[in-house]
Amino acid sequence: MGKQILEIGRTASFAKTITEYDIYTFAGVTGDFNSVHINEEEAKKSAFGRRIAHGMLTGGLISAVLGNKLPGEGTVYLEQNLRFTAPVYIGDTCTASVTVMDVLNQEKGIYRLETKVANQNGQTVLEGYAVVKYK
Amino acid sequence: MGKQILEIGRTASFAKTITEYDIYTFAGVTGDFNSVHINEEEAKKSAFGRRIAHGMLTGGLISAVLGNKLPGEGTVYLEQNLRFTAPVYIGDTCTASVTVMDVLNQEKGIYRLETKVANQNGQTVLEGYAVVKYK
Repeated sequence: MGKQILEIGRTASFAKTITEYDIYTFAGVTGDFNSVHINEEEAKKSAFGRRIAHGMLTGGLISAVLGNKLPGEGTVYLEQNLRFTAPVYIGDTCTASVTVMDVLNQEKGIYRLETKVANQNGQTVLEGYAVVKYK
Repeated sequence: MGKQILEIGRTASFAKTITEYDIYTFAGVTGDFNSVHINEEEAKKSAFGRRIAHGMLTGGLISAVLGNKLPGEGTVYLEQNLRFTAPVYIGDTCTASVTVMDVLNQEKGIYRLETKVANQNGQTVLEGYAVVKYK
């Protein structure tokens, strides 16, 4: 029988200041050149007022916590649910936090983790959950 | 009263060959240096057999379709659900497809779109849905 390796409530985080470089590099790698990310003049006319980071770039910080820290090496990423709750601007410092929520299948080592990213003002910019395999 | 702008069933896609450059750049931008992405020797010992792309990098191709094509300019990304169903290897050509599924709130212009990424063999590597605001 599989044994539970990750204790419920265990938590880890990673913080990074999001730069203009990050946004332009993410655009180049993924192909997402929506003007709200790369055109200050168009972004000024949007609801956001200036250029914002791609939501999936901020989501990548969650991947960093899962891949590097909790669970870390050996993690198989099965699922990620993301709700983008506030914009991330150039220069914002984002902290991604991951907390073990549930054991979905102890035998197979499948866990659900709460995932959240907040900015330097404590405002949640992204929230959701991940499902990973780890044993 | 808001009117429906995006017709149910409308679809768009974007394809890109995922390179070693993409994976290393994504690692540098997000901070996800899990060895399955950046260490061939460790990746050989994993279930995948060699280095694989970050799931959120593949997810970025969906963001590219939403941001560039459907709905395109003016899209506000509210939610994304991702299930990672198969690995993406260096050199794989991934096609991200987006299809309008439901109108969740016609007044506010909120839609749910089916999102999927397949590799060059037609195998689904990622599936889920997005919720966007567009009006």
